[in-house]
Amino acid sequence: MNNGLFITVEGAEGVGKSTNIAFIRSTLESMGIEVVVTREPGGTEMAEEIREVLLKNRTEMVAESAELLLMFAARAQHIESLIKPALVAGKWVISDRFTDATYAYQGGGRGVAFEKIGILETFVQDDFRPDKTILLDAPVEIGMARAHKRGELDRFENEKSAFFERVRNVYLDRMKKDPQRFELIDASKDLETVQLQLKRVIEGIVEVSS
Amino acid sequence: MNNGLFITVEGAEGVGKSTNIAFIRSTLESMGIEVVVTREPGGTEMAEEIREVLLKNRTEMVAESAELLLMFAARAQHIESLIKPALVAGKWVISDRFTDATYAYQGGGRGVAFEKIGILETFVQDDFRPDKTILLDAPVEIGMARAHKRGELDRFENEKSAFFERVRNVYLDRMKKDPQRFELIDASKDLETVQLQLKRVIEGIVEVSS
Ligand SMILES: Nc1ncnc2c1ncn2[C@@H]1O[C@H](COP(=O)(O)OP(=O)(O)OP(=O)(O)O)[C@@H](O)[C@H]1O
Ligand SMILES: Nc1ncnc2c1ncn2[C@@H]1O[C@H](COP(=O)(O)OP(=O)(O)OP(=O)(O)O)[C@@H](O)[C@H]1O
Ligand SMILES: [Mg+2]
Ligand SMILES: [Mg+2]
Repeated sequence: MNNGLFITVEGAEGVGKSTNIAFIRSTLESMGIEVVVTREPGGTEMAEEIREVLLKNRTEMVAESAELLLMFAARAQHIESLIKPALVAGKWVISDRFTDATYAYQGGGRGVAFEKIGILETFVQDDFRPDKTILLDAPVEIGMARAHKRGELDRFENEKSAFFERVRNVYLDRMKKDPQRFELIDASKDLETVQLQLKRVIEGIVEVSS
Repeated sequence: MNNGLFITVEGAEGVGKSTNIAFIRSTLESMGIEVVVTREPGGTEMAEEIREVLLKNRTEMVAESAELLLMFAARAQHIESLIKPALVAGKWVISDRFTDATYAYQGGGRGVAFEKIGILETFVQDDFRPDKTILLDAPVEIGMARAHKRGELDRFENEKSAFFERVRNVYLDRMKKDPQRFELIDASKDLETVQLQLKRVIEGIVEVSS
């Protein structure tokens, strides 16, 4: 049996990652592919506990390296105890965010040096990378307006729009440097149009993989 | 004002670290030194939350690198938000465990490569190290017998005695490689004898520092 494919879905707040992952799952399943959907930070019981520590609003100032190490601790646990076993079992794994989000949020958003992130990426992942990354891209105001409609904000969602501009730009830069891995979706469009684009992209991925 | 001294207290389970830290504190305070007592993993609200994630007994297998990254995430937060500010304010900081414990437990106990630990030590601490490390040393059976009297065991305390033999040996090795930093205390003796040794050691440290 072949390994499954590891697909990550990325983009700033409210672009529609969670909404469209349900669509990606059902599209793949309708083609007979077994799918595991997961998310970062989180995905396993322990990694979800780390997620809570990370997202909690707190008065204590959070050290830059503590935030980064927590992200990668959750990721290490996620990879070893969920992602790799599922891929080896031939399932496809779709993750709502992965390491690109660390470059975008901690790197772009908070200004952590990309080299620091790279050290931990190598430490945890060695050469493990997503097979494909679907980048949902939209102007920051559109995503923020959508996210705000959902209610209470966590420690990241409380950041200002300049923060999310930097997040968006890092995603776009990373796509330009690794065009083979990324698939760009214009997420500013209405949901029907977004999902038409997504369907074409997914069909392309499945075709190449089989 | 001069910076305070950073003193760590190390040793395997039940050798008497927590018990004797109270004695170290009162000895220093009686000499007019302002002391902050703390512990690892933990020491700040967020670091204590990480401690809970680390120590919890769980069915999920914990990835080696996840455990290591969590330890250093808690440490990064502890250093930046508690230890360094206290030292800069002229206080002495006494920590119940620090990075030597990571070498001893994750390295010696679990078999994580020392080089991996070294990467994260540099990542988080750069060249920040304890000024002095008090190593309480006793045969494993003595410490385990004392620890077991205290009741319910956490994820580490449930390890077998071969694990703690390795922990003890790594502590002793590290002491041999850095004799300037370490002060060895024979913790197999009764508490009165241990504290007589400790008193002499503390007086020596204070003398040199002033
Ligand atoms: N293309 C779209 N057009 C209009 N509304 C959309 C579109 N995509 C998603 N939405 C709506 O926007 C809101 C945010 O979507 P969703 O939660 O999927 O975004 P997200 O990228 O997962 O956000 P977050 O980064 O906060 O997890 C939801 O209410 C969703 O229904
Ligand atoms: N020198 C000693 N002689 C006899 N009993 C001792 C001595 N030192 C400590 N104890 C007792 O041994 C038990 C364990 O001591 P303590 O909790 O201080 O160890 P510890 O090193 O902090 O353990 P842990 O690694 O589990 O935190 C306590 O009940 C304490 O009263
Ligand atoms: Mg979402
Ligand atoms: Mg103790």
